[in-house]
Amino acid sequence: MRVDWRHRDLRDGDPSRRGPRRARSANLTEVGHLVTPQARAARNGHTGAVIWMTGLSGAGKSTLAMHLEQRLFDKGLQVYVLDGDNVRKGVNADLGFAPEDRMENIRRVGEIAALIADAGLIAIAAFISPYQADRDRARKASGAAFHEVYVKADLETCERRDPKGLYRRARAGDIPEFTGITAPYTPPAQPELIVDTAQKSIDACVDELVVYVQRHIQG
Amino acid sequence: MRVDWRHRDLRDGDPSRRGPRRARSANLTEVGHLVTPQARAARNGHTGAVIWMTGLSGAGKSTLAMHLEQRLFDKGLQVYVLDGDNVRKGVNADLGFAPEDRMENIRRVGEIAALIADAGLIAIAAFISPYQADRDRARKASGAAFHEVYVKADLETCERRDPKGLYRRARAGDIPEFTGITAPYTPPAQPELIVDTAQKSIDACVDELVVYVQRHIQG
Repeated sequence: MRVDWRHRDLRDGDPSRRGPRRARSANLTEVGHLVTPQARAARNGHTGAVIWMTGLSGAGKSTLAMHLEQRLFDKGLQVYVLDGDNVRKGVNADLGFAPEDRMENIRRVGEIAALIADAGLIAIAAFISPYQADRDRARKASGAAFHEVYVKADLETCERRDPKGLYRRARAGDIPEFTGITAPYTPPAQPELIVDTAQKSIDACVDELVVYVQRHIQG
Repeated sequence: MRVDWRHRDLRDGDPSRRGPRRARSANLTEVGHLVTPQARAARNGHTGAVIWMTGLSGAGKSTLAMHLEQRLFDKGLQVYVLDGDNVRKGVNADLGFAPEDRMENIRRVGEIAALIADAGLIAIAAFISPYQADRDRARKASGAAFHEVYVKADLETCERRDPKGLYRRARAGDIPEFTGITAPYTPPAQPELIVDTAQKSIDACVDELVVYVQRHIQG
């Protein structure tokens, strides 16, 4: 038995799913998702979103990201953290820390976060991401779903914390182009939220993030 | 007020979360997820997984992927399709179709699918992925969560369908190194499942996939 699949239009069954007929030669847009973002949002109780945490090394991005993930998960939300740990060891394992590699690292993370948001989750991305242009590109990938959070702490505070010993190594000349020491950090021009980890406790900062999510992503 | 974040160990509160203490110089493993894969699985009713669909162009990978996504979503599962449409336009927009770019395309997709599975979802990847070595690398990224599905249809059937007009263009010499025409396709050596789209209808193939998921991912 031969089955002719040629004329099956995936959207035939449901008029609401019928989109504009696409050119047969448009080889990347033949078959579209049958599950809408609206259906995912209705299921999860929130839209897909990207919470992009930027700040100096030691500002507390990963700590806040992990605690926020736990708090949102415990509230029933679908949430996932992207950080150097799971990205640099996998999809971006081919990249080093030269300027062009760091730019590509952030570019890919922005696109992957957009995919995770498209899947209906709240993607929390915790990366130094020192340049506005790179963050703007990440925003462009997710559009209105993107929320830029400046995890703010002055250099002296971060260097005193030095949780990974990186500032010490950077001062010793072991790490070239280290953000805040030998490479610049540009704070967000218009972040959706600023959390000040030099002045507030972890719990207070996470509280602020949870309230932000309730108001702007769950709302 | 200054807050000292240095000595806060994320895992202190819960002995089950306490892992081996990590070297301070290991700069990519400082902070771990507080939400476990087990907690995600309990929430979603299934583990995270990767369903990797490989086969010739026109074999029906994207069609099956989109229908499977809809069926699983309607059953309450968390599921998301990765295909050329959402990957090639975003995270892999920097890649062309030369052999090394196609290899890198599949490498990244394997890693991104692994991230999505780590987030608790069933990632359905629909890519020709003609080489066993590339698929094996994708499997390695996800480990036991990886399920290779051979979407089987003979070349003649695929070329007759030619839903994107690509075979016609390949025969005309417009597309170099087109799988099945001027580049090889290696069927999976030991796929977890074979769906034969030349012999069975779309619905029958999707049924087989749904049963497979029930038995091997939801179970």
